Amino acid sequence: MTRLVVLGGNAAGMSAASKAKRRGPDLEVVVLEASQDVSYSVCGTPFLVQQDIEDAADLRMLDEEGLQKRGITVRRGAKATAFNPYSKEVAFESKGGRDSIAYDKLLVATGSSAVVPFKAPPPKGVFALRRLEETVALEAFIKEERPKKAAVVGAGAVGLEMASAFAQRGLDVHLYEKGPRPLPMFDQDMTQGMPAWLEKKGVTLHVGTEVAELGEQGRGRLGSVVTKAGKEQRADLAVVAAGLQPNTQFAVKAGVHALNTGHILVDDHMRTNFHDVWAAGDCVAARHIVSGRPTPVPLALPSNRMGRIAGDSIAASLERIPGPSQTFTGVVGTFLTRLWDMGFAKTGLSEEEAKAERMDAVAVHVESTAKADYMPRPGRVNLKLVADRDSGKLLGAQLMGPGDSALRINAAALAVQVGMTARRLSEAETAYSPSFGPVWDPLVVAAAELAKACRK
Amino acid sequence: MTRLVVLGGNAAGMSAASKAKRRGPDLEVVVLEASQDVSYSVCGTPFLVQQDIEDAADLRMLDEEGLQKRGITVRRGAKATAFNPYSKEVAFESKGGRDSIAYDKLLVATGSSAVVPFKAPPPKGVFALRRLEETVALEAFIKEERPKKAAVVGAGAVGLEMASAFAQRGLDVHLYEKGPRPLPMFDQDMTQGMPAWLEKKGVTLHVGTEVAELGEQGRGRLGSVVTKAGKEQRADLAVVAAGLQPNTQFAVKAGVHALNTGHILVDDHMRTNFHDVWAAGDCVAARHIVSGRPTPVPLALPSNRMGRIAGDSIAASLERIPGPSQTFTGVVGTFLTRLWDMGFAKTGLSEEEAKAERMDAVAVHVESTAKADYMPRPGRVNLKLVADRDSGKLLGAQLMGPGDSALRINAAALAVQVGMTARRLSEAETAYSPSFGPVWDPLVVAAAELAKACRK
Repeated sequence: MTRLVVLGGNAAGMSAASKAKRRGPDLEVVVLEASQDVSYSVCGTPFLVQQDIEDAADLRMLDEEGLQKRGITVRRGAKATAFNPYSKEVAFESKGGRDSIAYDKLLVATGSSAVVPFKAPPPKGVFALRRLEETVALEAFIKEERPKKAAVVGAGAVGLEMASAFAQRGLDVHLYEKGPRPLPMFDQDMTQGMPAWLEKKGVTLHVGTEVAELGEQGRGRLGSVVTKAGKEQRADLAVVAAGLQPNTQFAVKAGVHALNTGHILVDDHMRTNFHDVWAAGDCVAARHIVSGRPTPVPLALPSNRMGRIAGDSIAASLERIPGPSQTFTGVVGTFLTRLWDMGFAKTGLSEEEAKAERMDAVAVHVESTAKADYMPRPGRVNLKLVADRDSGKLLGAQLMGPGDSALRINAAALAVQVGMTARRLSEAETAYSPSFGPVWDPLVVAAAELAKACRK
Repeated sequence: MTRLVVLGGNAAGMSAASKAKRRGPDLEVVVLEASQDVSYSVCGTPFLVQQDIEDAADLRMLDEEGLQKRGITVRRGAKATAFNPYSKEVAFESKGGRDSIAYDKLLVATGSSAVVPFKAPPPKGVFALRRLEETVALEAFIKEERPKKAAVVGAGAVGLEMASAFAQRGLDVHLYEKGPRPLPMFDQDMTQGMPAWLEKKGVTLHVGTEVAELGEQGRGRLGSVVTKAGKEQRADLAVVAAGLQPNTQFAVKAGVHALNTGHILVDDHMRTNFHDVWAAGDCVAARHIVSGRPTPVPLALPSNRMGRIAGDSIAASLERIPGPSQTFTGVVGTFLTRLWDMGFAKTGLSEEEAKAERMDAVAVHVESTAKADYMPRPGRVNLKLVADRDSGKLLGAQLMGPGDSALRINAAALAVQVGMTARRLSEAETAYSPSFGPVWDPLVVAAAELAKACRK
């Protein structure tokens, strides 16, 4: 019997395991998961904190029964520490001590961990929220300790989501950002209104403020945030959202090719440089369709998709299973989140990112009502499109708007993905109804404006 | 001085007039509008009835000042009755009697009128709602006469919008449909739940029920609806939404080429068979991108766009103005409306429409949650995709969902417009966030399913 060992039982790992088992039912599939949970939605964590969801268990996507039905064996609390691509063995640690398992096919889908950019924090009151058990612990902490002041370290997407959730839970929130502004993946002109808006929502934003340490108030419990400049501010609760690092040290040591960040390099079937080793998910650098570069994209859909494609390819590497039907066409990094009632969306590159890639990028920024302007409370949509001046090809889009208006990003994502020009997008026959938007959709308006600045 | 006469001062006419004047500032632009209003949003009418908008005047998109600033002369209440493409004169009727005006360039943008498929209705209490003045009269009628029972004739999009608006206004609504089901532009499997849903919303739907006449209750006032089967039902108020006919008789008489329905045929610069006569908007049959046929598309965005392109082409036909920069690439008929809290959207052809075109159409119908399934009240999205079996090319999409989830139609519209295959759409990197939808967007799920049924 051929054995597939999957390291990591989340989006990519479980997608791969399920797909491989479906296409190759004779395959023995063993998943080693470092935490106690497989297949949970880390994206759902803020909704638990802001009490839209009552029970952390709701974030589990697969139960024991589902796993058994799939014929997949899961070993929880088993953390891979090394593997040998020649003897084809994985070493791992678990409660029972060190152990090892032989594989015929191996998938590395170990995801990423939170970067903690300061000395080891005190144990109680500090959370990183990558694992479901951390979310459960956070929830218990809030209920038992009734914290009043929350500190969030890092004002990227996750930091802002947590700040928004804590504020909606009634906490006094301080958000610390090392860099000059929040949401740095967006262009500066898109987010310049954010500090005032956050203030209004009850979140105090400290930009250009590096956190040096988290102070204890005794019994190993968090008491304060100390900045590099030496300021100390009270905090009963802290979330560290200062970036992610891939859990790939063991794989890199084994000789798997990776970026210097540790993100594993793969082909378009998610195969690494070792013939029987695949990688998928957050721990991978996938080809970015716009920049052409291998790029880490810690997002749910690409992770799931990479997992499926890896599973497909693994099954196809077995005897008597026909060749893989899917290849991974790369990523554009389509991102979406909601902070309070505002949606924030992005696809492709920002203008700043495109310029950093030395592209001759042109951009337009349009503001529009989110409904026909005669409707009550029409709201505002804020949209930026970026294109390559010479070819006219779209490089990216950024969008903010109330309700679900940010779903407009999907049409832009498709346009960026297929290399459409701004001119072509300006001809899009978008939908119109007064309560959904203006006759001329902001996407079409921006594309028409942008086309004028392009040579084609 | 060269004179452009524009017949019809709404979406297409005013877009053309503005565009032509901007590109050719020396042009004299005269608009003859049959009603008392130019540039108003007929799509906004239901929102007035359901009291989201307070004043019909809010639906006016252009005021006198705006017109003057644009340098456009408007004659209200002036209805074109004939024109001579050789002597280049338009005859029209107005309060002052019959008159005529000479033109150098002519645009026919006279829109469409409601079909009234029964003997002339009594004057009071019956409305067709094509002109803003009719909406004003309806609003006055509701306020003065306090009707309790509303009849809507025709369960297409407009009929359903009015039924929804009347029900939200607290009226007892009866909706009469000659055909076997509501919203016939959608496939039967998409709308089979509608009768029960309408009932729950307080609208009684009578399918297979042709209205023979509207009965009077004295003093020229509506009293009842009489069906062809002889049933009589009380009605204090009726809206006729049984279809539209183009206001083009005078143009057809002058020799303009048109479909037998009266819809004018144009080239991709909106020019008719007469060199100095253009047509745009509801009164035109534009090339449908999927079927290839000239097709009437009485929708706001295509009307506005046709108007602009006509204006562009008209200006470019003048001396010393460079050639037109835009061509009209055809329509896919992207449609969107909201009934209560549900969005209904469509683009391209339905399965039934594709089969009527003798295409080898395959279709999939998926249901999905409108948010991640662990979110509270996740709602349901109902999506159908249609493709050509041989080429795999997408032919159309239909979508229903709560809130603004139906904005997903824009990505499908773009895909249909550029002739994308289902397989390519299945690779779309759509946006994910738990409160906006599931990880695998229904569009991607349906496209993947559909791709399996296609040969490419």
